[in-house]
Amino acid sequence: MRLKTLQNLGIFRMSILITGVAGFIGCNLAKRLMNEGHIVVGVDNLSRGTLRNLSEVKNAANFHFIETDCADRPRFLAETATFHERFPITEVWHLAANSDIPAGVSDATVDLKDTFMTTFNVLEVMKALDIKVLAFASSSAVYGDHGDRSISEVSGPLLPLSNYGAMKLASEASISAAAESFLNKAFIYRFPNVIGVPATHGVLLDFVNKLKANPSRLDVLGDGTQQKAYLHVDDLIEGMLEIQSNASEKLAVYNLGAEDEGVSVRNIAEAVVASVSPNADIVYGVEKRGWVGDVPKFQYCLDKLKKLGWTPKLDSKAAIKRAIADIVEQEITLK
Amino acid sequence: MRLKTLQNLGIFRMSILITGVAGFIGCNLAKRLMNEGHIVVGVDNLSRGTLRNLSEVKNAANFHFIETDCADRPRFLAETATFHERFPITEVWHLAANSDIPAGVSDATVDLKDTFMTTFNVLEVMKALDIKVLAFASSSAVYGDHGDRSISEVSGPLLPLSNYGAMKLASEASISAAAESFLNKAFIYRFPNVIGVPATHGVLLDFVNKLKANPSRLDVLGDGTQQKAYLHVDDLIEGMLEIQSNASEKLAVYNLGAEDEGVSVRNIAEAVVASVSPNADIVYGVEKRGWVGDVPKFQYCLDKLKKLGWTPKLDSKAAIKRAIADIVEQEITLK
Repeated sequence: MRLKTLQNLGIFRMSILITGVAGFIGCNLAKRLMNEGHIVVGVDNLSRGTLRNLSEVKNAANFHFIETDCADRPRFLAETATFHERFPITEVWHLAANSDIPAGVSDATVDLKDTFMTTFNVLEVMKALDIKVLAFASSSAVYGDHGDRSISEVSGPLLPLSNYGAMKLASEASISAAAESFLNKAFIYRFPNVIGVPATHGVLLDFVNKLKANPSRLDVLGDGTQQKAYLHVDDLIEGMLEIQSNASEKLAVYNLGAEDEGVSVRNIAEAVVASVSPNADIVYGVEKRGWVGDVPKFQYCLDKLKKLGWTPKLDSKAAIKRAIADIVEQEITLK
Repeated sequence: MRLKTLQNLGIFRMSILITGVAGFIGCNLAKRLMNEGHIVVGVDNLSRGTLRNLSEVKNAANFHFIETDCADRPRFLAETATFHERFPITEVWHLAANSDIPAGVSDATVDLKDTFMTTFNVLEVMKALDIKVLAFASSSAVYGDHGDRSISEVSGPLLPLSNYGAMKLASEASISAAAESFLNKAFIYRFPNVIGVPATHGVLLDFVNKLKANPSRLDVLGDGTQQKAYLHVDDLIEGMLEIQSNASEKLAVYNLGAEDEGVSVRNIAEAVVASVSPNADIVYGVEKRGWVGDVPKFQYCLDKLKKLGWTPKLDSKAAIKRAIADIVEQEITLK
């Protein structure tokens, strides 16, 4: 078993647990933390994440994979405890969640189980194993619709429109109570739309695949005016590590994103069409929102993040451009 | 079966479901709604509520009791559906929750089940049975510690200190998403400390019973400087009905309380001692907080409520005075 080798090496810095490690952000984070010399123990139920996403890390000496569902607490605890006994885990990055927002709107139990109970169980496991540092992937969806207002970390009210947003807020709330009770340090990162590869879901992948299926026409949910900020996954990870190094609060809540007005769905559709199938017609819906729970417009205030001296390398437009190129390579060139 | 009689009478206005009907607020609300001519179907698992609390209503023609746990969804749905078929329920007042905050801090599964899953299941039952109006007993605990700031409904951040507060916020979040998806109208009432009889928990009952057990000494958790606003249960119910008649928002979030600086634990201890055992010594702890998750100071901004033209009859001090008299009667005079 590779764990024995690890123990003999004795060269690694910390042992870090990542939930949702086989997902889009999880696999990128694992690579980055392993490059910094940490042992990564990754948990995933492989329902949406795939082993293919782990191809670059799975054979490394400092990676250990546990295939289990965080929503299955007894098994999640048992498997984590076994690893923890030999390589004490000092922090957890909890990324596991449902990523199909409309699915969670039609059936609330999806986000209950995958977005909230995973968090609840992560906290229970941390309490049981005395692990004190948690980083959590929250979402701009906790804010709901604030219209044209720029949204800071202390903005209220928090009235999410989707069960996904609701269960991310529920997760934040549980983490907040845990920080008061038994955690030493918790980071709540409110993600914007994050893009890059390996793309597993989201508007870019959706558009690219629609055009692959029908190169002459792209149907867009909603009227295309929805406008959101986007962050490239490399910047996202950079930003989280920067916050983790510099934020002094015990419970550090941060909006993460680029400080710009974002990009409209119309601009995204045009950019994807230009890249994949320049002669395709783009056909828009009539609704302001793409689906129930979608927020038509959204802008972060990033003053708190900027105070730490960090800004992303790519703004929303540049991030979209790079991600389209990456995804076209993933979906078309490489297939 | 009494339901048959009800059907024959045909004189009642609406059929309303109350969860947690055998608790302190639930039984008072049932009385009030029945007095207005509604049919009340009350649900309670009798874990903290008692049938004794329902003695005044249980034999009325327009009351029907279902002993079940809202956390047990299949049974809760089946029993509610049976009633709903004959007397279509038009609104739900969801009050069922854990009321022992420290218990929920030591074991997070208490509030998960009793404070959050009850709400989640109420929403699932409402969706299944096509019931469109929900009133929910939320709490000031969703806000966490805002220091000396006056807290309005749009104040942020929402970082609860206890699992109770976390699961009330989780409930609000789920209701917010449901209002976007399938509810016609939802009321979120953020309760302050509510007092009155039948007292089942809380600082007043605690103090009265401590003095009953030892008339010469009252031990107080915390240093006595914690200061909170209190609302008498009669005012609370009055206020909720007022909001329900007048609030125009689809999702109406309201702080409920009296606009005063509140009453300190020290003042409450002195008032209870004066009433129950005037020669007792009061012994304080050293902590600012009474327990993990307790908020030392708390003040509501009630402008939104006042705009509807409503203020409570009793301020915090008057409410405390009246509730002490009521509880002394309940615990000492009547026993």
